[in-house]
Amino acid sequence: MSRYLDPPRHDVREVVARALAEDLTPLGDLSATLLPSGATATATFVVRDAGVVAGTACAREVLRQVDPDLEIDWGASDGERVGELASIGSVTGSLESILIAERPALNFLMYLSGIATNTARYVDAASGSAKVWDTRKTTPGLRSLEKAAVRAGGARNHRGNLSDWIMLKDNHLMGMSIDAGVALARDRWPGRTIHVEADRLDQVDAATRAGADAILLDNMSPDELRTAVGLVAELCGEGRRPLLEASGGIDLTTIDAVSHTGVDMISTSKLCFGAPTLDIGLDIDARATT
Amino acid sequence: MSRYLDPPRHDVREVVARALAEDLTPLGDLSATLLPSGATATATFVVRDAGVVAGTACAREVLRQVDPDLEIDWGASDGERVGELASIGSVTGSLESILIAERPALNFLMYLSGIATNTARYVDAASGSAKVWDTRKTTPGLRSLEKAAVRAGGARNHRGNLSDWIMLKDNHLMGMSIDAGVALARDRWPGRTIHVEADRLDQVDAATRAGADAILLDNMSPDELRTAVGLVAELCGEGRRPLLEASGGIDLTTIDAVSHTGVDMISTSKLCFGAPTLDIGLDIDARATT
Amino acid sequence: MSRYLDPPRHDVREVVARALAEDLTPLGDLSATLLPSGATATATFVVRDAGVVAGTACAREVLRQVDPDLEIDWGASDGERVGELASIGSVTGSLESILIAERPALNFLMYLSGIATNTARYVDAASGSAKVWDTRKTTPGLRSLEKAAVRAGGARNHRGNLSDWIMLKDNHLMGMSIDAGVALARDRWPGRTIHVEADRLDQVDAATRAGADAILLDNMSPDELRTAVGLVAELCGEGRRPLLEASGGIDLTTIDAVSHTGVDMISTSKLCFGAPTLDIGLDIDARATT
Amino acid sequence: MSRYLDPPRHDVREVVARALAEDLTPLGDLSATLLPSGATATATFVVRDAGVVAGTACAREVLRQVDPDLEIDWGASDGERVGELASIGSVTGSLESILIAERPALNFLMYLSGIATNTARYVDAASGSAKVWDTRKTTPGLRSLEKAAVRAGGARNHRGNLSDWIMLKDNHLMGMSIDAGVALARDRWPGRTIHVEADRLDQVDAATRAGADAILLDNMSPDELRTAVGLVAELCGEGRRPLLEASGGIDLTTIDAVSHTGVDMISTSKLCFGAPTLDIGLDIDARATT
Amino acid sequence: MSRYLDPPRHDVREVVARALAEDLTPLGDLSATLLPSGATATATFVVRDAGVVAGTACAREVLRQVDPDLEIDWGASDGERVGELASIGSVTGSLESILIAERPALNFLMYLSGIATNTARYVDAASGSAKVWDTRKTTPGLRSLEKAAVRAGGARNHRGNLSDWIMLKDNHLMGMSIDAGVALARDRWPGRTIHVEADRLDQVDAATRAGADAILLDNMSPDELRTAVGLVAELCGEGRRPLLEASGGIDLTTIDAVSHTGVDMISTSKLCFGAPTLDIGLDIDARATT
Amino acid sequence: MSRYLDPPRHDVREVVARALAEDLTPLGDLSATLLPSGATATATFVVRDAGVVAGTACAREVLRQVDPDLEIDWGASDGERVGELASIGSVTGSLESILIAERPALNFLMYLSGIATNTARYVDAASGSAKVWDTRKTTPGLRSLEKAAVRAGGARNHRGNLSDWIMLKDNHLMGMSIDAGVALARDRWPGRTIHVEADRLDQVDAATRAGADAILLDNMSPDELRTAVGLVAELCGEGRRPLLEASGGIDLTTIDAVSHTGVDMISTSKLCFGAPTLDIGLDIDARATT
Repeated sequence: MSRYLDPPRHDVREVVARALAEDLTPLGDLSATLLPSGATATATFVVRDAGVVAGTACAREVLRQVDPDLEIDWGASDGERVGELASIGSVTGSLESILIAERPALNFLMYLSGIATNTARYVDAASGSAKVWDTRKTTPGLRSLEKAAVRAGGARNHRGNLSDWIMLKDNHLMGMSIDAGVALARDRWPGRTIHVEADRLDQVDAATRAGADAILLDNMSPDELRTAVGLVAELCGEGRRPLLEASGGIDLTTIDAVSHTGVDMISTSKLCFGAPTLDIGLDIDARATT
Repeated sequence: MSRYLDPPRHDVREVVARALAEDLTPLGDLSATLLPSGATATATFVVRDAGVVAGTACAREVLRQVDPDLEIDWGASDGERVGELASIGSVTGSLESILIAERPALNFLMYLSGIATNTARYVDAASGSAKVWDTRKTTPGLRSLEKAAVRAGGARNHRGNLSDWIMLKDNHLMGMSIDAGVALARDRWPGRTIHVEADRLDQVDAATRAGADAILLDNMSPDELRTAVGLVAELCGEGRRPLLEASGGIDLTTIDAVSHTGVDMISTSKLCFGAPTLDIGLDIDARATT
Repeated sequence: MSRYLDPPRHDVREVVARALAEDLTPLGDLSATLLPSGATATATFVVRDAGVVAGTACAREVLRQVDPDLEIDWGASDGERVGELASIGSVTGSLESILIAERPALNFLMYLSGIATNTARYVDAASGSAKVWDTRKTTPGLRSLEKAAVRAGGARNHRGNLSDWIMLKDNHLMGMSIDAGVALARDRWPGRTIHVEADRLDQVDAATRAGADAILLDNMSPDELRTAVGLVAELCGEGRRPLLEASGGIDLTTIDAVSHTGVDMISTSKLCFGAPTLDIGLDIDARATT
Repeated sequence: MSRYLDPPRHDVREVVARALAEDLTPLGDLSATLLPSGATATATFVVRDAGVVAGTACAREVLRQVDPDLEIDWGASDGERVGELASIGSVTGSLESILIAERPALNFLMYLSGIATNTARYVDAASGSAKVWDTRKTTPGLRSLEKAAVRAGGARNHRGNLSDWIMLKDNHLMGMSIDAGVALARDRWPGRTIHVEADRLDQVDAATRAGADAILLDNMSPDELRTAVGLVAELCGEGRRPLLEASGGIDLTTIDAVSHTGVDMISTSKLCFGAPTLDIGLDIDARATT
Repeated sequence: MSRYLDPPRHDVREVVARALAEDLTPLGDLSATLLPSGATATATFVVRDAGVVAGTACAREVLRQVDPDLEIDWGASDGERVGELASIGSVTGSLESILIAERPALNFLMYLSGIATNTARYVDAASGSAKVWDTRKTTPGLRSLEKAAVRAGGARNHRGNLSDWIMLKDNHLMGMSIDAGVALARDRWPGRTIHVEADRLDQVDAATRAGADAILLDNMSPDELRTAVGLVAELCGEGRRPLLEASGGIDLTTIDAVSHTGVDMISTSKLCFGAPTLDIGLDIDARATT
Repeated sequence: MSRYLDPPRHDVREVVARALAEDLTPLGDLSATLLPSGATATATFVVRDAGVVAGTACAREVLRQVDPDLEIDWGASDGERVGELASIGSVTGSLESILIAERPALNFLMYLSGIATNTARYVDAASGSAKVWDTRKTTPGLRSLEKAAVRAGGARNHRGNLSDWIMLKDNHLMGMSIDAGVALARDRWPGRTIHVEADRLDQVDAATRAGADAILLDNMSPDELRTAVGLVAELCGEGRRPLLEASGGIDLTTIDAVSHTGVDMISTSKLCFGAPTLDIGLDIDARATT
């Protein structure tokens, strides 16, 4: 299962390299230069609050880039639910290397486990048939990591970028009907998902008839969503119906109701954008080597 | 005042380039290819909740990198407090360019204004003499932007990285007294701030006598902090005393009490790490050109 | 129409920078150092054979990066069919700059117009209802440019990369039925195109019943394709049917027959991978300035 | 012999990294996320048509960058002539890694072996004393790889870039005689090859007298070339004569005649620019691990 | 001790990669392509003049990047004083790899050992209590390496960049008193070193009273320096006094006198900027493998 | 003339970007944040010692990258000899921008003018017919800038990198005669300069007979050089003779004698590697804007 939850390897390498460069410029770790020669340590990553783990590939990459000779003994995997004070992995080797890696490794783990934990809250709250989707509201430059953490938390990934599929919003349809817009998109980009935004039932009707692959039902109440779901079911009969997405202002208090309306997906930026971090620490047991 | 609040220009350029690359790979904005030729628009960035603005340099750089011909008319500056529905700037030009820039520009504004707004809550809550400090717990690769947003929110920046100054924690002092550690640091890195972590009063005493520039008072109650402040005052007399920092588990409910204990600085990672975003939207008024 | 044909701007900038770095290392253009001071020229890009133009954004970017003061007067757009000896643009300014830009600008134009011209041959040859699709067989590191040139030649773009959509080949379905594979893909990646490879009619049947968005009909004869099209039509009735792609060993002599079988798409790597270049030259009219 | 045929290692690393980034953005290989955990495979690279191999260093680097744990058992070297269905190497390890590496590894092999195979056709066709030279007409950003493939095909490399040596064309000689131009070049860039373009015999005469190291005989017929060769021999007597290059519109039907005229080199962009690819496939034998 | 003398690892990696790219573009080492297959060698780095070694991490990284299979047996460490003809390390493996690595490895060693050796001359010449400081006058892009070489030579590092600490020169104090300037700096950047430039005694007085952490005594004679030291001692009494730096036109003939004036630091750009290199060679013992 | 003296533009851009990044990490210029809003200045670059200017393209690029709105009024060009206290250019605009640009701009000017000035000393000292050549001993990563500064000082550039031409040293000729080595090099790399190192007259004889383009006469006395020159003249008669280079331990006291021996070139690493800098300052005239 873990492969599905992994961020792309080259992104991990690049982001970790940036994080280290940012923390070690221009003279390296001044404080570490005061350590006795040959000091070593064993250090354990400990979760301070219960949550869902994510970011382990990044933390391990931090350790590797700082010092390939560190011995890593990793416990938890991305997507794993862990209780307070659980150990998620330990590392043994040069104390200097561990102190340099400490902050960046923890920053990745706290940040990404925070997203996974927060996502799991939304997924758990939605007891109906709808799945939970993230959005393109993500921290700039870190999208692939955040989307992996969202998967670790049990939700699904919406578009990764503007090239993945077509979304037709009102601004894209200036002077064109939905039908003409979908036809143009289908002609130019066959095989791609065509997604149409609808604020009103007549737009849902038009998008369904036009053969959209997915329809975003924007800012509708549970009742309005149910009506839209019914309309689409009626129009499609036995044939394949478009994926229906509820979006707009959904939070932990309203997600459950929406999940029972028959829509397929509920999207919200709240899974990751501005998610609180998960508190994780590094317990270091250092000793001078003789 | 705004210069003090600006992030470094080359960081802005680089981070924006990464954010655009991430959102436009590999085929550009598919949906925009459906727009009528020559469509233009005017669009306005509108704050949906009251808060403190940050990230304007990034948002403007997004617009510039996407299309240097866009006309930008910027209103609010970083650090400005704005009310609900305030406009913070507008842009006129190619509709395609505006649609491409929309999400990355908003992501920067929402993320960084979220940090500034959250920081201002802490600064406002601390009515005593202590100033508020951030930490090195920041989103990987984005530290200089987050630290600028912290300044926009009215707090101050702690160490930017491991090279800025020396921090002596227990692991750095294996087999050395605080006095010996400070002396070694002073010998090797003259002119640099030397900062010592103290959990107990005897360590405060030792660090003060050793001539530390700053002392981190870790996880102390307001009463303990007051005692530590008194001890340092007594030891230093008329001479210069070290900067005293309270740290550890401080939140919005406890920061005010701590700010009245006589410490100089209160540091907390909560200003930016995992701060909620500020809701900001882009109102687009599009038209086809004749 | 030209926006639909454009490669992403940041890719153009990056690829051009690499092309210039490769041609000017480490001492710049030695020969240009012999030119008289202040020499200027007007130079015209002339197509030596009839064809379809592509790569104009790259050629203009070469000129801009070499010397922002060059005056560019561009004629033809990407996707335009031009006859032998047609001028596609001219440039006026420093002779040194023009000589430095000459080879890289021509290399982009010849290479990408070659792809567009070659693609147009396939598109013209397919007189039936099927559209022509490219593949992921592209020159390493230059895919977004080649895919734009394919659009300029009148064909469509298949997947841009492994993240765009799901393709299930036999190796992906080890120990899973097509039905189970599509269901798993739909569960994990809702909203994404799910594409199934089929060598035999029973696989076409299974993929259609499983609700695949697209089916690759691999190495089938026109008759087999017609049978597969009929089967899918029967299974889907009034409802939406999957996109049907014919693939495998199709060339200029066979594409027309395939295009009349009722499939939606014909994919071939021959559009761009190893396409011959289009011969284009730069006629320089130089003069010494007084 | 293989060292002479290798592309520079750091170029290989960089180009492969770009090719992988281009194919895995932003969410990695979606299809691979559906594989059973622990699936492994052995896969063999098989040439579908006879040809000359090139690009093996790139293919191996793709495998290494995707997964350092893959076991590679490589057979053929760059420059080797292989028959239809020859195996050129095999790889064993994680099925996911092999599927991710498949397309980029094959793209490098097909593209570069195509150039080597095409080059060998020209080299084989030229039965006279002249050697075959490539040009600076190469795919942007990939020149060092293409030039290595040209060597693998048995031809030689002309200038690598504008800094390697001096070429004096008519535009470089505005208001200067060939004699003055060569003297200026010799004065400023002693030790560098000075190459003069000549369209007519009087220019050949002038360039030889001026002491050029090489003369490009542009667009001359075999008879004209023989006359030029004779003229140079006469002028130089026992002393060293310049290298004579025939260039302009030479193809597979004319190269043999030119190779017997006494010129040293025949240059043509047709070796690599727009060369057809060589068909190579990957036969995968996958199995689920127990 | 060596950790204190090391340059940051990621800087070493990056700078070495640039040095190799610069020396191998675009066709690699042409001369090495003529070597017999399988030739190997053992080569020894030998110091031609007595001096202080620096740059060993860079030299080893050059060897590693050129060929990870080279066996390195390193002798001397950064900071070690070595006599004429001392061996500082040897390497065994592919002759081609050693020839490619030779020049870049030697360039790093000669350049950085030159700085260390030159720095040691200044440090040795200053027999008084003052320590020696470098400046921000460094070769562009190589500062972290030069600052490490300065430490290897026994001197200390001043500011690494404009972000490390605050320096108030006259231009920063336009219309502000020193007192107001220090207060503003202290308010905005608590915890940071505040350094004030003083040309005259009244400025020294003002800076001391304002609580500056350090004072630059610019272009003062030994007598003036002594007066300034006395003034500060008087003002500070028992309390902590600011660090006093003598700067301006100090060279090998004047540094000793300055070092006895009671200042803490003597800064000079002459340690590294324009320092002569140390002559180091590589003795290669090559053999063809059977 | 200046074009011949210019470093490549893209190198200038890249190296300047690195120099600025190195000086502004991670929080920008702290001191500049204290400046009054809107302060402006005019600043003049003034040479403190007589010398030869170089690096002006870099200094201007620093100003441009820091602030495109600065007005630059440049006086001196690279290669110009200037007297003590000569102004070489001035800049007007934001005081903050000028203070940020000051150190990097001066570092480039001092470093590169130092090389040009030092080179001119060698060129001036060699009153004979030989020209002066640099070597590949250069500061890592900055070779193209140093080679341009060498040209500004009046000397010539030897090989730029290992790809420019072939140099056969004893290690390249293991088990091969000079004749066989030259023949192999000529066969594989036609058109490239072939340069042979000779320690003894018999090697000079062999290299000349083998048709080498250039011969390095290593560590020979003026008398030995004269003998070698005579031998080559005898062997070549009327025909073209190879370029003769004297190398090894040549300095300002010996260069003149060598320049009168009849060799063509004298090469020495002393022109740039470890050259002293030229003292240049920036006189700033600041004012607060009203």
